[in-house]
Amino acid sequence: MKLRGGIDLGGTKIQAVVVDEQHRVVGQARQLTPNTGGPRDVAMAMAATLQEAAQQAKVEARQLAGVGIGSPGLSDARRGTVARAGNLPGWQEPFPLCAALSESLGIPAYLGNDVGVALDAEALIGAGKDCDSFIGVFWGTGIGGGVILHHERWLGRGSSGEIGHMVVKQNGAKCACGRRGCLEAYAGRRSMEARARLDVERGVKTELFAIMKKKGRTQLASGVFAKAIEDRDKYTIRLLDRAVQALGIGLASACNLLDVEAVVVGGGLGSRLGQPYADKIAAAMLPYLFTRDHPPKVKVAALGDLGGAIGASLLVPGKTPPS
Amino acid sequence: MKLRGGIDLGGTKIQAVVVDEQHRVVGQARQLTPNTGGPRDVAMAMAATLQEAAQQAKVEARQLAGVGIGSPGLSDARRGTVARAGNLPGWQEPFPLCAALSESLGIPAYLGNDVGVALDAEALIGAGKDCDSFIGVFWGTGIGGGVILHHERWLGRGSSGEIGHMVVKQNGAKCACGRRGCLEAYAGRRSMEARARLDVERGVKTELFAIMKKKGRTQLASGVFAKAIEDRDKYTIRLLDRAVQALGIGLASACNLLDVEAVVVGGGLGSRLGQPYADKIAAAMLPYLFTRDHPPKVKVAALGDLGGAIGASLLVPGKTPPS
Repeated sequence: MKLRGGIDLGGTKIQAVVVDEQHRVVGQARQLTPNTGGPRDVAMAMAATLQEAAQQAKVEARQLAGVGIGSPGLSDARRGTVARAGNLPGWQEPFPLCAALSESLGIPAYLGNDVGVALDAEALIGAGKDCDSFIGVFWGTGIGGGVILHHERWLGRGSSGEIGHMVVKQNGAKCACGRRGCLEAYAGRRSMEARARLDVERGVKTELFAIMKKKGRTQLASGVFAKAIEDRDKYTIRLLDRAVQALGIGLASACNLLDVEAVVVGGGLGSRLGQPYADKIAAAMLPYLFTRDHPPKVKVAALGDLGGAIGASLLVPGKTPPS
Repeated sequence: MKLRGGIDLGGTKIQAVVVDEQHRVVGQARQLTPNTGGPRDVAMAMAATLQEAAQQAKVEARQLAGVGIGSPGLSDARRGTVARAGNLPGWQEPFPLCAALSESLGIPAYLGNDVGVALDAEALIGAGKDCDSFIGVFWGTGIGGGVILHHERWLGRGSSGEIGHMVVKQNGAKCACGRRGCLEAYAGRRSMEARARLDVERGVKTELFAIMKKKGRTQLASGVFAKAIEDRDKYTIRLLDRAVQALGIGLASACNLLDVEAVVVGGGLGSRLGQPYADKIAAAMLPYLFTRDHPPKVKVAALGDLGGAIGASLLVPGKTPPS
């Protein structure tokens, strides 16, 4: 039985998995992404993380059929290079990530886009596996996503799936991308954090930052929001309701255009807040939805935190279809 | 050489064409849609209009390979029935339109959705024929449209392409559909007319209604808007700029989601206002577009007023591929 490796390269952490032919995770490991040095240091850390996952699966990395990588930035699958990975140290120029990993691990390496491979995993073995078509939205630091049509990712000219930059309000809030009124400007974790910091300066009361400190964090991570909701912090509930409203509008617009069967909500916030918030998003979509009498299902991504790494493992050729 | 018939059934007019195997129009006729009676009267008028188009093509209708119908309302292609055609007289219950026309003309009849067939025509032989993917937007009384992906219409669960009901402004203007902030509420001809009537009551100055009367119309038809623009009526310019802004936002959102190659603008207003307004729409999209450095082309629909009828003729089987 041939095992495969998958690595999800994030700005904060590197997540590696080893999966079997039925896509079951038989080993996993996680390390912090180096925040100094350059691409070569990141590649070394990635190799080490995969070695650790392989160890847990009781194999050596060089026995794997190959390793897939889900990468941020501009990934060129054919060349195996990644460029302009803004959240990674010193990574502007194209770096031959596949060659580096392949050399260090002794197995072939394959490259894909981080959001894209996570979406592929949800489509093949996750929340979307019974859907012919769905929209995937990764609700995290930013808002990424993609469109699955007839079980395949629609790529367009290469830049499709920018759900976070659908406009929900003409002349609306300023987005980190420089545009105005983007969904991400209302619902992205980073935007919500910026707003919360501003509101606290203005004297608004919230437990968010106390929870952040208690958790030893310097940012309002998804877990911080989840805890504040659990504690019924009124400000956080309002802030998330505003995000949910924007998500409802953006996703309803997307569904009015494409009439897909389902919406799959993943990402840090999507996974942490779970089905109760997926249901809130479904309710927020309803007033704007053309198919109000038969709305698309809104589901939480099934693969959670490991979706990116499992999706990356799908890049390794020779996988069997899911049972 | 086998000729085909096509009929575009509209709330105001019935447009019929006869086309040859290269989709060239060899006969055409237009009649007003009966506004009294019921579906059977409409079907009779449709048959008469096609007879007239056939006469112009120097054939008899019964010599045609068949006739395609692009219909508003709920069309059931398999059963050949149309229901809930709100703009047509007494047409709520399903009526067997194909059977009625087939019987009256002595040739097989085929049914499709009016916007859908017009879009198919633009995709096959019109402005989209060199595009693998594009968004078609029919800018008229309302705002319809559709999505062409890999040269085919994406249908979703059967209700896709509702571009007019993409939301461009949270808590925005009330739309005729009952929802808020829809693109159509800003850019649909009917919405713009309602707004203009209200503004005139409030004392705003515009030549729109004088032009309407001069043209012997009771509504602000597309031609009325076009003439007012030609006359540089300031109010009309502002009203259309507001529509263009909303179109820019909605279409940019759609393109951020799908990254298609082009946007094709048709419909009464789209065709009348032509490329200068297509260029304005392109400019309005730009600030919201993720692919700002390589924006999709924005083109005017190539088949104009006849697009619906030509598209309907494509429903007749046995057509040859375009040369």
